[in-house]
Amino acid sequence: MKFSCQKNILQEAISIVQKAVTGKSTMPILQGILINAKDDTLTLIGSDIDLSIETKTNVDIEENGSIVVDARLFGEIIRKLPNAAVEVKTTENNCIEIVCSKSKFTLVHLQSEDYPKLPEINEDKIFTINQKTLKSMIKGTIFAIAQDETRPILTGVLFEIKNKKLNLVAIDGYRLALKSDFVDNEDVISAVIPGKTLNEVIKILEDDGDVNITFSNNHMLINLGSTKIISRLLEGEFIKYNSIIPEEFNLNVTAKREELLEAIERASLVAKDGNTNLIKLNIEEELMVITSNSQLGNVREEINIILQGQPLQIAFNSKYLIDVLKIMDQEEIVMEFSSSISPCIMKNKENDNCIYLVLPVRLANE
Amino acid sequence: MKFSCQKNILQEAISIVQKAVTGKSTMPILQGILINAKDDTLTLIGSDIDLSIETKTNVDIEENGSIVVDARLFGEIIRKLPNAAVEVKTTENNCIEIVCSKSKFTLVHLQSEDYPKLPEINEDKIFTINQKTLKSMIKGTIFAIAQDETRPILTGVLFEIKNKKLNLVAIDGYRLALKSDFVDNEDVISAVIPGKTLNEVIKILEDDGDVNITFSNNHMLINLGSTKIISRLLEGEFIKYNSIIPEEFNLNVTAKREELLEAIERASLVAKDGNTNLIKLNIEEELMVITSNSQLGNVREEINIILQGQPLQIAFNSKYLIDVLKIMDQEEIVMEFSSSISPCIMKNKENDNCIYLVLPVRLANE
Repeated sequence: MKFSCQKNILQEAISIVQKAVTGKSTMPILQGILINAKDDTLTLIGSDIDLSIETKTNVDIEENGSIVVDARLFGEIIRKLPNAAVEVKTTENNCIEIVCSKSKFTLVHLQSEDYPKLPEINEDKIFTINQKTLKSMIKGTIFAIAQDETRPILTGVLFEIKNKKLNLVAIDGYRLALKSDFVDNEDVISAVIPGKTLNEVIKILEDDGDVNITFSNNHMLINLGSTKIISRLLEGEFIKYNSIIPEEFNLNVTAKREELLEAIERASLVAKDGNTNLIKLNIEEELMVITSNSQLGNVREEINIILQGQPLQIAFNSKYLIDVLKIMDQEEIVMEFSSSISPCIMKNKENDNCIYLVLPVRLANE
Repeated sequence: MKFSCQKNILQEAISIVQKAVTGKSTMPILQGILINAKDDTLTLIGSDIDLSIETKTNVDIEENGSIVVDARLFGEIIRKLPNAAVEVKTTENNCIEIVCSKSKFTLVHLQSEDYPKLPEINEDKIFTINQKTLKSMIKGTIFAIAQDETRPILTGVLFEIKNKKLNLVAIDGYRLALKSDFVDNEDVISAVIPGKTLNEVIKILEDDGDVNITFSNNHMLINLGSTKIISRLLEGEFIKYNSIIPEEFNLNVTAKREELLEAIERASLVAKDGNTNLIKLNIEEELMVITSNSQLGNVREEINIILQGQPLQIAFNSKYLIDVLKIMDQEEIVMEFSSSISPCIMKNKENDNCIYLVLPVRLANE
């Protein structure tokens, strides 16, 4: 194998595939990246089995071949090289030589035959989505996945296509996040993607252009053109989330999102004691009063709201409300309530592309 | 006590004194900051005994008084308040009330009588130095203090005034850092300041203006005008550093600092194996060849130099050279050597305000 290219082109390709190299796999070869030089295309692959990333780039290839080299070390070397042409070639004794300007490195490499094959996915049935939209949908739901492994299926995000609509859903037992967008696809799909691979996916997605997505029985393939991301699916049945979201309510509140967020953040400063984060909302005619108290002290916050329905007192773990208010991006939001022990629904006032559900905390004296 | 001021003025004052509140003291009251309102001046004090910071600011005071309040909680509350006027007053039951716009906090406070008194330092004998110069001198030496406590005096930086010159010196047994500047002071002073307090001092020093410094038997006082920083001194005798710095040498090398730094950083990438960081310098007529090898692979780097004297081979822990080359700021540097087992001296080519000394690694086959 022998190829040469500009340092920054190689660096960019490495940084993409490195996102799949977690160092947590039990297979030592997965600490490496596969480099394959063929004709005029250099292909790099990084993988931890759950997530695999392949990227292709055009470079000058003098001799075809493929090797596996330590991802961290190779990445650091290329990153530290001066901005100039880099030549990489295999030499004797299972080594590669990296030459750039006045620097010459010799590194031991592993055999590409030992590197696991990527799953083959038939890209017959794709659907296309804007990268920025997909990124925003993932970010808008992933915070609500379960952090513990007691129900593994809840550590992922449901991708559901139904009635030409893509829904992303995450549930952790205390809250639900749902983001939706229209897609030009008649299929019915339901697949759950591990949260940890989606965390890497959002780092690769750009703000421009589209991606093609394909689901196979066990994998999702996100095709960005020169880069392909393949994630394993989680096995099992996802919660029937539609039955959780209440369709009726007794009161609804319209509030300014940032004002509400800041008031709740301040109120929760004294609520951190004992990690309960307990805050109380006192919803009145034109006013929401937010209070909290602990042995540190107490706080009272007021914000102006528009209330439709009867006044209500209800308590929450402030963290859950803060997470939602931070991820929402419209100026005004609507909160829907039925009683002090029923879930609260949060939506944008203007745009119905998301639904958030948060369970209240039942107070001891009720 | 009752005062009011703009939120950002109070926030700034808190953030200054908070740097002395480390939470590591065994005295619970030192997790608080002392707030004293008198006439038209609000005084805030934070301390962990080793380091104390006092800052004064003009505010509207309706009622004199002083209290102690939890530094972290009070700081977070003020930071999260909207940009508006804040009113702080004591209320019943050892509480303070903080009111800003539609927010109202009530916090428990501690008694100011229980807060330790700041050491009294007579500011008769001061010397004046530019803040930016002092910051650069501290940064240019503090990296070389000892990290372990086997010789406590070496965990500090020596401040020495002699012949109208201020020298800052740090030594950790493998290297020495010395930065000097002229001061208008005839005194002879020798005091060792703990590294951990200097780390906070450089966060407070600005890029403009002067500070007045006073030494007492046990303390150093840095007076910035509205803010005073008081650090304890370390007890004991500092190493006679002058006897360590060789005055003669057999060869000297002039090199471009960044070129040398980048070559050594790359060379050390394969040297990290086993944490020895061992690199070899092969100093020839117009060339320095830097090599390193480990079971990961090997590297050869070349840079152009000007050599006066005989060629030499010498080995180093690359970390020590990198630390020095990163902190130096001139374009060209000079390295002076006597033999492969004698210390290396590094200086600026153009400016003699610093001297760095690094011990070489003796190779097994010598």
